[in-house]
Amino acid sequence: MNSSLNPPSLAETVNAKGFSHAAGFRIVNIVPGHAEVALARRDDLVQFFGHFHGGVITALADQAAGIAVTSGLPKGRIGVTVEIKVNFLSPADGGELIARARTLKMSGSIGVATVDVFSKDGATETLCAFCTATMRALDLPAEFR
Amino acid sequence: MNSSLNPPSLAETVNAKGFSHAAGFRIVNIVPGHAEVALARRDDLVQFFGHFHGGVITALADQAAGIAVTSGLPKGRIGVTVEIKVNFLSPADGGELIARARTLKMSGSIGVATVDVFSKDGATETLCAFCTATMRALDLPAEFR
Amino acid sequence: MNSSLNPPSLAETVNAKGFSHAAGFRIVNIVPGHAEVALARRDDLVQFFGHFHGGVITALADQAAGIAVTSGLPKGRIGVTVEIKVNFLSPADGGELIARARTLKMSGSIGVATVDVFSKDGATETLCAFCTATMRALDLPAEFR
Amino acid sequence: MNSSLNPPSLAETVNAKGFSHAAGFRIVNIVPGHAEVALARRDDLVQFFGHFHGGVITALADQAAGIAVTSGLPKGRIGVTVEIKVNFLSPADGGELIARARTLKMSGSIGVATVDVFSKDGATETLCAFCTATMRALDLPAEFR
Repeated sequence: MNSSLNPPSLAETVNAKGFSHAAGFRIVNIVPGHAEVALARRDDLVQFFGHFHGGVITALADQAAGIAVTSGLPKGRIGVTVEIKVNFLSPADGGELIARARTLKMSGSIGVATVDVFSKDGATETLCAFCTATMRALDLPAEFR
Repeated sequence: MNSSLNPPSLAETVNAKGFSHAAGFRIVNIVPGHAEVALARRDDLVQFFGHFHGGVITALADQAAGIAVTSGLPKGRIGVTVEIKVNFLSPADGGELIARARTLKMSGSIGVATVDVFSKDGATETLCAFCTATMRALDLPAEFR
Repeated sequence: MNSSLNPPSLAETVNAKGFSHAAGFRIVNIVPGHAEVALARRDDLVQFFGHFHGGVITALADQAAGIAVTSGLPKGRIGVTVEIKVNFLSPADGGELIARARTLKMSGSIGVATVDVFSKDGATETLCAFCTATMRALDLPAEFR
Repeated sequence: MNSSLNPPSLAETVNAKGFSHAAGFRIVNIVPGHAEVALARRDDLVQFFGHFHGGVITALADQAAGIAVTSGLPKGRIGVTVEIKVNFLSPADGGELIARARTLKMSGSIGVATVDVFSKDGATETLCAFCTATMRALDLPAEFR
């Protein structure tokens, strides 16, 4: 996380659990309506050809989209995914993935975000996937507040 | 796997690597144009609320779609994902996920599959996600044959 | 319309306006959660190759999905499209299009429908497009009731 | 069309036929990998509420995406739509629609484009829809060359 958020943000709390934690998702930056999440390559995150697995790419994009949309909601609300769509554009064969999400529109309880996912090798970033996600805002259940 | 495939099929070989292996994807059945893949719940596969992570659901659907499409291709060809779209319909809070894919259409080198993903709790299956995937058939690179 | 609905249903009223009316969309059947809408070929509805235009196919699928979802809502509510996704599977070169929609899931105010679109030539129907639509239920504005 | 193209481009020839001609699609600008297409409001292009019909919006986005992708292909090749996905973000209630497409990636015979669609009222443009389209490049059939 890029800064001295204290206590941890909802995004950090969400990210520190389950698959995103186990895979090593790393929140790089959040500004309202935008989020950047990174993931280093590991052998248990790739597919047959040794590139990042499409589902892992989708998970990272989903996480970034959720953070971007949630960052624009009032406290106590969270965005959950209604649907997600990913186009795979080039092999995700770098050492790291970077997902950069931005909220395109919030309208009532529906938010739409797009995510550029880059495969990073050294200083070179290549757009490897493009994602659109539709989110629905709901009240964070009491047990998670 | 449902039967005495010997040597292992391409689907089994693909599945035994990387994320699908690490997560524990289990090929239940393949008939040309159809595939069923299952995944047992684990704490490292869920999201914040404790349900299967959307990216993991997508990965399972993607794997099933790829197997369904590839199963209809000539030997030496494999389907890779051009784009995938998933609608999340209800909480994936069961003990197991079952993804059932079928090829809707092969046309030239483009195949389209749909996948029903069920959350299974005991004997009860609930449709928790619906997926459409567009695949592109390509020659299996020599080093993977 | 398949029967003696009197007064006209909301679906018929919606269909009798604007593009759906001008293009000649014909409601063939409605049962709660399902809708069938047809469209005869005309030279002003095709694309360059003489097949039905992809946008016209999408419009028909959208209309059918909206009717299917709305048919399951309480009176005074209508489903509007959040997002729609269409795969074009084979040339829509028949004399008529038939869109058959079904609601996959209603959950809160969100409904998801799939639509099979067939190109019909004489007695032969060919699946030419497959669509997924996400709808949002809202109160019909007072001026439209 | 923005300039002295003489003879007409493939995009203009395609646009001058069928639905795009009947609806009044107007090519505003083409540079390789980008296209802008506009459409004035007419009563036969709207839906029940009087806004542009979602299918008409999709048709315009599809046309713009096709032109953007085709503009980057060698002469004699054309992009046809494999699948298209549109999120509707706000009411398309302006006097004109403007679709601005750009090619995100060409890879082999597959091209992916995104399209921003604006509803224009006087000098104000509002993003009303966002579209992703996957295109397949094929040889223009001899009878259309």
